[in-house]
Amino acid sequence: MSQLEAAIVVLVSTFQQYAASQGKKDTLTNAEAKTLLEKELPCLLKAAKNPEEVDKVLKSMDLDGDNEIDFSEFMILVASLTCACHDLFTKA
Amino acid sequence: MSQLEAAIVVLVSTFQQYAASQGKKDTLTNAEAKTLLEKELPCLLKAAKNPEEVDKVLKSMDLDGDNEIDFSEFMILVASLTCACHDLFTKA
Repeated sequence: MSQLEAAIVVLVSTFQQYAASQGKKDTLTNAEAKTLLEKELPCLLKAAKNPEEVDKVLKSMDLDGDNEIDFSEFMILVASLTCACHDLFTKA
Repeated sequence: MSQLEAAIVVLVSTFQQYAASQGKKDTLTNAEAKTLLEKELPCLLKAAKNPEEVDKVLKSMDLDGDNEIDFSEFMILVASLTCACHDLFTKA
């Protein structure tokens, strides 16, 4: 398996790992999403000045407003963060 | 670094690795993109029935038609493939 394929598998398995703990197995509840951000993207939360900003991030992830975050909504956050990282790396 | 952060770094470094060989350092030429697909996503190319289909994938990646693939165009391909993988894993 290539490094890119391995990274794609990690994106899927990370989502599945956190989605499995409560409610439906293929979506993240608000609490599951918060735990995922805390554990997997601590840098993102550190950048948040206060808890309200974290809630804003969570709310912005839920694009269709159904109080659940499905995999495509999760991928939109990951893709935006990855583009931000790429900009950081290339502008450094 | 978490597994998700590590996967995000791989997405950025993989793109940079292949973008560096020809032309501009922060975009993929057609040849660089083809090499990236062959080396990093062989499963995608195996699924293509003929070379024309590979050219179609490359053309579809170049959303603004400037004959170069920038990082956000690359990420759209990666996000679509990742969603397809997630569907495969959850429907299996």
